[in-house]
Amino acid sequence: MALIVQKFGGTSVGTVERIEQVADKVKKFREAGDDLVVVLSAMSGETNRLIDLAKKISDQPVPRELDVIVSTGEQVTIALLAMALIKRGIPAVSYTGNQVRILTDSAHNKARILQIDDQKIRGDLKAGRVVVVAGFQGVDEHGNITTLGRGGSDTTGVALAAALKADECQIYTDVDGVYTTDPRVVAQAQRLDKITFEEMLEMASLGSKVLQIRAVEFAGKYNVPLRVLHSFQEGPGTLITIDEEESMEQPIISGIAFNRDEAKLTIRGVPDTPGVAFKILGPISAANIEVDMIVQNVSHDNTTDFTFTVHRNDYDKAHKVLDKTAEELNAREVVGDTNIAKVSIVGVGMRSHAGVASRMFEALAKESINIQMISTSEIKVSVVIEEKYLELAVRALHTAFELDAPARQGE
Amino acid sequence: MALIVQKFGGTSVGTVERIEQVADKVKKFREAGDDLVVVLSAMSGETNRLIDLAKKISDQPVPRELDVIVSTGEQVTIALLAMALIKRGIPAVSYTGNQVRILTDSAHNKARILQIDDQKIRGDLKAGRVVVVAGFQGVDEHGNITTLGRGGSDTTGVALAAALKADECQIYTDVDGVYTTDPRVVAQAQRLDKITFEEMLEMASLGSKVLQIRAVEFAGKYNVPLRVLHSFQEGPGTLITIDEEESMEQPIISGIAFNRDEAKLTIRGVPDTPGVAFKILGPISAANIEVDMIVQNVSHDNTTDFTFTVHRNDYDKAHKVLDKTAEELNAREVVGDTNIAKVSIVGVGMRSHAGVASRMFEALAKESINIQMISTSEIKVSVVIEEKYLELAVRALHTAFELDAPARQGE
Repeated sequence: MALIVQKFGGTSVGTVERIEQVADKVKKFREAGDDLVVVLSAMSGETNRLIDLAKKISDQPVPRELDVIVSTGEQVTIALLAMALIKRGIPAVSYTGNQVRILTDSAHNKARILQIDDQKIRGDLKAGRVVVVAGFQGVDEHGNITTLGRGGSDTTGVALAAALKADECQIYTDVDGVYTTDPRVVAQAQRLDKITFEEMLEMASLGSKVLQIRAVEFAGKYNVPLRVLHSFQEGPGTLITIDEEESMEQPIISGIAFNRDEAKLTIRGVPDTPGVAFKILGPISAANIEVDMIVQNVSHDNTTDFTFTVHRNDYDKAHKVLDKTAEELNAREVVGDTNIAKVSIVGVGMRSHAGVASRMFEALAKESINIQMISTSEIKVSVVIEEKYLELAVRALHTAFELDAPARQGE
Repeated sequence: MALIVQKFGGTSVGTVERIEQVADKVKKFREAGDDLVVVLSAMSGETNRLIDLAKKISDQPVPRELDVIVSTGEQVTIALLAMALIKRGIPAVSYTGNQVRILTDSAHNKARILQIDDQKIRGDLKAGRVVVVAGFQGVDEHGNITTLGRGGSDTTGVALAAALKADECQIYTDVDGVYTTDPRVVAQAQRLDKITFEEMLEMASLGSKVLQIRAVEFAGKYNVPLRVLHSFQEGPGTLITIDEEESMEQPIISGIAFNRDEAKLTIRGVPDTPGVAFKILGPISAANIEVDMIVQNVSHDNTTDFTFTVHRNDYDKAHKVLDKTAEELNAREVVGDTNIAKVSIVGVGMRSHAGVASRMFEALAKESINIQMISTSEIKVSVVIEEKYLELAVRALHTAFELDAPARQGE
């Protein structure tokens, strides 16, 4: 008998029929003897409908009041699921974030969970009830309703699992697990049985949008075993956990992530004086633009070239800021490029294997793909290439790192 | 500077545009210097939509969970109005029933208010904020969300006005006040400037559906001046208050109420023994049928005739119960009639005026309308007549009691 937290997202509870299917699933687990806490999102589309309603009043809805409105979305689904369970003879009770109580800070629309009171839930579990909790929402110390921001239901699930010391937190989605890369790009992409939190973080932040990053961080921090599964298909999914078996044979890399959302900006011929990086990036940061990769080449003739990437949506804004900086610094020129893509190989196996990066560069060279920027971390190597080569690069790397073997050994 | 509680119903907040209009209205009061607490219903249709959603899961939705769902309706409107006020530069804050806190018993779907914590609201008023409160909902001592049942928003308004000792509780509706009778029946019907709680109770329970009866009872009990006004038309409305000016000249009757929803049942030739009334009505009550008028004629030949009215929806059920009783009591026969209507004259002025009933009977006799049943209370006289005479009777009485004078003196 295990204690499991299960989280179902918006499409899994998008209609009453879907909610009935979720109830069937939960019933099966309950009858197998598990204690269950179920976290739900709002019906798909409902949160947007509520936000649109608020925006009819004001383009910039008051954050406190917006939370009062959007939190109603989950309040409806939790009660519907509790009803559907009770109809099946499974005792159940629903709780809003306030009722649990999930205490957050007061940062409306993007609050952070501070503390979860587990007493009420433990009492219900002991009494044999399935507890259905509204995801995405909480309450601050003054009793104001807060929300965690988009995708926050995953975080609620993980936080509850941590507070209850659950055996597993299961995140039900519309995919059956985490893949070595996007199956739409590489037909031979495979579902991973297991992946580490670190790898998952790199995969997620690089564009594999299965799980909310904050939820993975939270799970890693509190060591909550996290499993990604398909809501309505059977299967083991992918378990995200700590890297306990480093000595066992592991694949060198776990997956290949990519991202077409970035653009590149270069300021050329900047006088290379101490503090120049701050002089360039300070104004960018002050304009609230997030920078991803940063590369500064070695200087020659006392000038240097400085390149970084930003989200494509921020490209024009960043270009203007950089033009002004270039003038002030007496730099030679600013050049930009939006036709780029980032491809990354990710894997904890890199730590114990040399030559991973050169194997990556070799594979790309074989396909005559020019590398524009390189950035490395302990468990990943990212390159920026011309966008049109993206699919080719991903397929070449998937093969080079032996990810598309039909029956991968796994761990 | 007064403290006013204003309640707006579902049609007044049925769209974002309407909510903006309500905000304009509230702003005007605020700028005139009043302290304001605004109570809102859900957008019209929303409560039904939510109930339908729950009924898709179960014909008999679990009451606790149903309250969790339907309470979201008001939660949306209060936040929208708070936003609309803030947009107009009026500081405002929204509170759910739980946030106020409006403590109720645990009778889900039909809870009763036990206590209202006025501290938070007083603090906000002192700080210059308009407080927007969700009507219809509360929380029980265990933190479960409760609702007061249909029309409960009026009750929330009155209860808040009582707790805050407000100067007035204004109920905004789609009519501009309480009329001497239904203007669709009598074109000369007039808006009353003032009416007593007792009269309003008689008018409401007799079919003038302007206000929820519970709210009027509550207002009377705590002596909260209640005013019915039109949401979007200017005008003084009708003030419902205690009868302070009995010595001043008053109209004998304030209004004429009527009701087509009843049916009549008579059990004839019942042996007139002690306890016969209970023997007849006990089984009716046991079948959960509410009885309105009851008339027992004097007995002759040691038998009596016993007549009562029930709601037409209960007529068939009541008839069956009565048939069985008639057999047991060895009564002669049971006869029934659904083609009846009840007409009542209501007014505190009756207390000090003799002959009101006979004036009523005279007016009806002049029109050759036969009276089937009569029932009287301290401030009303009701008669049952054949349904087809209803409009004629109401018009005749409206004239006989001088209610259609074009410029009524009023008080």
